[in-house]
Amino acid sequence: DKQFKLFSLNSNRALAEEISELMGVRLGKSSVTRFSDGEVQINIEESIRGCDVFVVQSTSNPVNEHLMELLIMIDALKRASARTINIVIPYYGYARQDRKARSREPITAKLVANLLETAGASRMIAIDLHAPQIQGFFDIPIDHLMGVPILADYFEGKNLDDIVIVSPDHGGVTRARKMADRLKAPIAIIDKRRPRPNVAEVMNIVGNIEGKTCIIIDDIIDTAGTITLAANALVENGAREVYACCTHPVLSGPAIERIEHSKIKELVVTNTITLPEEKQIAKIKQLSVAPLLGEALIRIFEHRSVSDLF
Amino acid sequence: DKQFKLFSLNSNRALAEEISELMGVRLGKSSVTRFSDGEVQINIEESIRGCDVFVVQSTSNPVNEHLMELLIMIDALKRASARTINIVIPYYGYARQDRKARSREPITAKLVANLLETAGASRMIAIDLHAPQIQGFFDIPIDHLMGVPILADYFEGKNLDDIVIVSPDHGGVTRARKMADRLKAPIAIIDKRRPRPNVAEVMNIVGNIEGKTCIIIDDIIDTAGTITLAANALVENGAREVYACCTHPVLSGPAIERIEHSKIKELVVTNTITLPEEKQIAKIKQLSVAPLLGEALIRIFEHRSVSDLF
Ligand SMILES: Nc1ncnc2c1ncn2[C@@H]1O[C@H](COP(=O)(O)O)[C@@H](O)[C@H]1O
Ligand SMILES: Nc1ncnc2c1ncn2[C@@H]1O[C@H](COP(=O)(O)O)[C@@H](O)[C@H]1O
Repeated sequence: DKQFKLFSLNSNRALAEEISELMGVRLGKSSVTRFSDGEVQINIEESIRGCDVFVVQSTSNPVNEHLMELLIMIDALKRASARTINIVIPYYGYARQDRKARSREPITAKLVANLLETAGASRMIAIDLHAPQIQGFFDIPIDHLMGVPILADYFEGKNLDDIVIVSPDHGGVTRARKMADRLKAPIAIIDKRRPRPNVAEVMNIVGNIEGKTCIIIDDIIDTAGTITLAANALVENGAREVYACCTHPVLSGPAIERIEHSKIKELVVTNTITLPEEKQIAKIKQLSVAPLLGEALIRIFEHRSVSDLF
Repeated sequence: DKQFKLFSLNSNRALAEEISELMGVRLGKSSVTRFSDGEVQINIEESIRGCDVFVVQSTSNPVNEHLMELLIMIDALKRASARTINIVIPYYGYARQDRKARSREPITAKLVANLLETAGASRMIAIDLHAPQIQGFFDIPIDHLMGVPILADYFEGKNLDDIVIVSPDHGGVTRARKMADRLKAPIAIIDKRRPRPNVAEVMNIVGNIEGKTCIIIDDIIDTAGTITLAANALVENGAREVYACCTHPVLSGPAIERIEHSKIKELVVTNTITLPEEKQIAKIKQLSVAPLLGEALIRIFEHRSVSDLF
């Protein structure tokens, strides 16, 4: 009797289509365009009255455009009498603005949570929130999924010898530990200092990496300063080869050039963020989160637990 | 003891500076830039604790960028303990999405009202909201100012003979009547049908315009289809010359070309929306709303009535 509907906005259409194929449900008919003056125009072209609606949209770059598309879609769904509005945000943007690091800073990650709830979201499904505390910014239920198993499975399939999982900073040690547990490998930590945002500086390495295959793991790779300096430091300190991986390939500014010219052998990412063609370089391998999300959405729709998905 | 602070975001810096000069207060120190990945970065560089803060920002094109700048600024001001946060929105974007004209449409003008309140705005000052009902979308106090007196004063100064104020559609008759009262002129109405958004079709003219100087008035000129077809219809029906005016020069898409090639002698607009250089053509005269806003802000700060300002 209850009805499941899946919609896509503009950030991750290929991912949404993949999820719809895996689930065997067709994507809801809708269009998201712009009026002549740049205002978002949304048309939902089928009834969703009484349905459990799932909307796939990352708040990736252009973040403000993608966020407003999502807010306006939620508004339209609410007014069209959706039973529940479940927002699937593979990449939650503004997550790094999650605290006042200096006086008079906004906490935009919390603002965005409030905006989504105000618009009318009933539930959020997200992957690797930059800070798990962001779950507490919401009063609606959150299903928080993880990219580590997807990345770990890929490296498992490569049958690499003598690997070490490397956290590029202290904040990422928990994530590195999870990856290491799955791959039965030890960990190492890069002990670095970052003078200002988007600028990274590598210091020394804690742990044994000599002659080993290093896999650096992070949640977000943005300008790739941290990760490429880390890779170079590892090689200089005797690592045999260096892989890198992350869930969210933001890859802004100089990122692609830095990765191309770095000691990184392969960068493994997921499709929580759509990579434009110019960023799909040979060194970057993109894995899909569609199987994870497809399974999660069907379980959520059927009120079954998702906690063993990671 | 109470302190007044005026800040500008990115949409209308020249207007905010003009207001600050007229009021004899300096603009608050802040910067609104972008991180490498496009996320908005706001720095407020002076204390605003306990102050009545006024922030000037139109939600003009790029509307989603300007709106998010404003929301994030409100969040930062709130967390920095502003006493009141007064948002000055000379042009309120998304105002045309103020009702469900068809099934499953969003009501984005209401969504935006909710977002601004959720972020923490205490009051809004706006000019010529496309529909006055938008005031009712807010639960905070609104001061709604009007552009008609500014436009009327300009035409009064021109000493034109035998003028008729023309409303380009039925929805604009009230506005045309206000203008006509100030200029002691009769009105005429263009009786038109619009087949779809951004496309206009002129029908016939109600009222006597033969041999007269017509002044068409509208609130928003967007693609300029309506206004240029109206001007041509007036000339074809015997008008001596045709002026046009509006408060909000959206001027998107083909607008400038249409205006250049139309029968409009001069288009008079205000600076609620900043015109980029390529839109500052000889035919367009831009008047400033700074004196109106400056006077309104000082009265609001001092808890004096603004109702005689229009
Ligand atoms: N989009 C962004 N790009 C770069 N830095 C950011 C961004 N958003 C927030 N920040 C800054 O990044 C720092 C937090 O990053 P992290 O330590 O990785 O959680 C804070 O100082 C923020 O001001
Ligand atoms: N930015 C926009 N540009 C053009 N048309 C719009 C825009 N926003 C909303 N609309 C449509 O304009 C109509 C309302 O315009 P109006 O009759 O002038 O109030 C509605 O059908 C809206 O769907």
